[in-house]
Amino acid sequence: MKNKAITDREVDFAKWYTDVVRAAKLADYSSVKGCCILEPNGYALWEKMQSVLDGMFKKTGHQNVYMPMFIPENLMNKEAELIEGFAPEVAWVTQGGKNVLDERLIIRPTSETLFSDYYALKVKSYRDLPKLYNQWCNVVRWEKETRPFLRTREFLWQEGHTVHETAKEAEEETIRMLNIYKKFFEEYLAIPVITGRKTEKEKFAGAEYTYTVEALMYNGVALQSGTSHYFGQKFSKAYDIKFLNRNNTLEYVYQTSWGVTTRMIGGLIMVHSDENGLVLPPKIAPRQVVIVPIGDDEEVLNLCKNILNKLNDVNIVTFMDTTEKSPGFKFAEHEVNGIPVRIEVGKRDLENNKITLARRDTREKIVVDKDCDIVKEVENLLNDIQNNLYDRALKRRNELTYECTTLEEIEKIMNTKPGFVKAMWCGDEACELKMKEIRGTKSRCILENEKPISDKCVVCGKKAKHLVVWGIQY
Amino acid sequence: MKNKAITDREVDFAKWYTDVVRAAKLADYSSVKGCCILEPNGYALWEKMQSVLDGMFKKTGHQNVYMPMFIPENLMNKEAELIEGFAPEVAWVTQGGKNVLDERLIIRPTSETLFSDYYALKVKSYRDLPKLYNQWCNVVRWEKETRPFLRTREFLWQEGHTVHETAKEAEEETIRMLNIYKKFFEEYLAIPVITGRKTEKEKFAGAEYTYTVEALMYNGVALQSGTSHYFGQKFSKAYDIKFLNRNNTLEYVYQTSWGVTTRMIGGLIMVHSDENGLVLPPKIAPRQVVIVPIGDDEEVLNLCKNILNKLNDVNIVTFMDTTEKSPGFKFAEHEVNGIPVRIEVGKRDLENNKITLARRDTREKIVVDKDCDIVKEVENLLNDIQNNLYDRALKRRNELTYECTTLEEIEKIMNTKPGFVKAMWCGDEACELKMKEIRGTKSRCILENEKPISDKCVVCGKKAKHLVVWGIQY
Repeated sequence: MKNKAITDREVDFAKWYTDVVRAAKLADYSSVKGCCILEPNGYALWEKMQSVLDGMFKKTGHQNVYMPMFIPENLMNKEAELIEGFAPEVAWVTQGGKNVLDERLIIRPTSETLFSDYYALKVKSYRDLPKLYNQWCNVVRWEKETRPFLRTREFLWQEGHTVHETAKEAEEETIRMLNIYKKFFEEYLAIPVITGRKTEKEKFAGAEYTYTVEALMYNGVALQSGTSHYFGQKFSKAYDIKFLNRNNTLEYVYQTSWGVTTRMIGGLIMVHSDENGLVLPPKIAPRQVVIVPIGDDEEVLNLCKNILNKLNDVNIVTFMDTTEKSPGFKFAEHEVNGIPVRIEVGKRDLENNKITLARRDTREKIVVDKDCDIVKEVENLLNDIQNNLYDRALKRRNELTYECTTLEEIEKIMNTKPGFVKAMWCGDEACELKMKEIRGTKSRCILENEKPISDKCVVCGKKAKHLVVWGIQY
Repeated sequence: MKNKAITDREVDFAKWYTDVVRAAKLADYSSVKGCCILEPNGYALWEKMQSVLDGMFKKTGHQNVYMPMFIPENLMNKEAELIEGFAPEVAWVTQGGKNVLDERLIIRPTSETLFSDYYALKVKSYRDLPKLYNQWCNVVRWEKETRPFLRTREFLWQEGHTVHETAKEAEEETIRMLNIYKKFFEEYLAIPVITGRKTEKEKFAGAEYTYTVEALMYNGVALQSGTSHYFGQKFSKAYDIKFLNRNNTLEYVYQTSWGVTTRMIGGLIMVHSDENGLVLPPKIAPRQVVIVPIGDDEEVLNLCKNILNKLNDVNIVTFMDTTEKSPGFKFAEHEVNGIPVRIEVGKRDLENNKITLARRDTREKIVVDKDCDIVKEVENLLNDIQNNLYDRALKRRNELTYECTTLEEIEKIMNTKPGFVKAMWCGDEACELKMKEIRGTKSRCILENEKPISDKCVVCGKKAKHLVVWGIQY
């Protein structure tokens, strides 16, 4: 039995995706062109992601702040690459109240500008360093297409911006945050990721280099899921962020920035979900267990309440569905919403001393003894689900990861069963552009620690410099 | 000994306020005209406020969502009073990327428009009601003046927007949220508040009526600190939010909205703080206790760590200051930051088996036995401070609350020692305007449950309808 509101994933992946988003009430289009509404189920996922990541940021010494969302045009213009990179996709405020503004304001597409301007005022000495700030906010990029979570004109994200005394410290910060993202994806979202450095062409405007977190969706398309940038002194020179160093001479600070967005929710859906709706890893599910009493027998209800209390007492987020809908309707609803575990208790089950647990990932039903240690059973099941989702996603990704030494192979793969392609590259942009002709295939990142698979560039045949992962991207 | 960076509160209250804001590193001006930066100490306060309020909202069945920040001009225009009320103070986006927009966008000053538009699509039947949504976000109002937390072009807030089946339910919601705000102010912020209904002139544009939470600052100026609006069917008629009711006929929903903002941080400062900087009620302080070891004697440090662990174990947020600054410098810094309790441990104290606790509110030092139950001592002290701050604020407010039956009395009060003035009012706007001539005095709210103090309007002498609290406002 499959949810009729949801298109077959194998038939039309894009339609399947928006069907899941709407059926699980995660987000909807709005009357504002290019913008989506995060509905309660979608926003609850974002809150859960925020709370986990924010904890990780704070544990590593970061503090939250809030910068204005407006950037005066002149301030943005100070860093040439940044404005060039973002100019085609920013929104402009030109009027406040009844008056046309003297200077136009950009709505932040990212906040390097304002953080740099602030640090220039506040940082005087090495004693003021490092500053490890982050903010959770909305940003705007004037995209043409709209896809919930993946591409909207306004979206939510966090952006960390740090300044340091030495290049070494700033480079360590860049890697530290990359690894925090990797940990978050793998341990919480149950999504295996590849991390590595972006090519010059694909790096962030104004960065010395960019590290990226790349995930592969069920359909073999790549999703850039988080980035961590090392700026060196590029911004500190443009915005004049100088400090008196330990040798008592003025020096420009070393800077980083790093961010992840509500796009992660899109990734979560496209890796784990199925034809019955959302599938959530227990560690990120806002609600982990639902109890459905079948019928209104008092003994049944009491047992359900008893289980509810036991689970909530150990912080397994559990709720009980006592609405007047039919059990079948409830089962489908909780499935589409991706609640990891459903507990069913009916009068007949009780007579047989049984309780049924249904796991969302495999849709298996497990019958346990009424008097079992239910907390233990559910804890084990949640762990199993978390691990199974990761393993399943890793297996899928491995199936769709290829090593190629010819362009013909890559072309065939991208046109039939696309995925991550590992291939050697000489380092020339011309070869990247050539690759792009194959269904828009782009370099995802340079794998710095893996063994080369050949000594020739897969495109031009000249001497290869890097092993690169390539893919079609969202 | 007083903090030299902070102006005397009795001499120049406005300057004292900005001095405290800056000395405690709560916020700073930015390069963006009219906008402030929330620095780590200020943002941490906001996070704490959010977490307490959000818990209260969720306990009463509310869910968080996120609406776009852009409002198309035509959508805003549907509710005439709303656009009239906000038009003079909105920011306009007129260009996206390289293109001038066909339709200008308003950056949300408030989101009745988008919530109404959304509900119109989603609400079909009484079974879909109530919808109890809230969002935490930024809003923009194009103010001319700038004062950190009190008046900035962009600020942070929460806005709840609910729709209901009956007027009764919506009116109950309006009062429920008003009472949640009151509870939050009194129990967490230790600020006594007056709640009541706004006059027609002062109510929210488009509301049937507005309830308000009014607090009195140390200097006798009133701060509107939160509002809860009942809309009846005004928005549902303008935005066509209809549902099939239990009698199977179409009906317009009944609606509310309610909000509080980062302005609360301004109120917190202006009620409790002093010449030594910030004073925070323990229940809202992001950090409640600081331990300062004096010297680097190992026994001292071990005892400090021991206390640190004991307090953190019972969720009293405690940190230890082992930086290389002098004890005197540290004391001043933690005072200016408003840490409610400081624990000092030195070698000489230990020899005498003593530990010193310093409370921020009264700056008293309390010497306790080294082997006392330190958790109990600190818990009691934090409670004492919380209660003392409330009592002190209430006493101050009572001293500055007057009952008046003549305009002359009011004039004298407002020109010498302003505060809340209780006086009778006939209900005519002309009398409100007359009152405004006295240093801008405005009605704060109508007291619906208090005994009249006369039968004549204090302005015109005609028959009085309401007992009103008046004040000079921020």
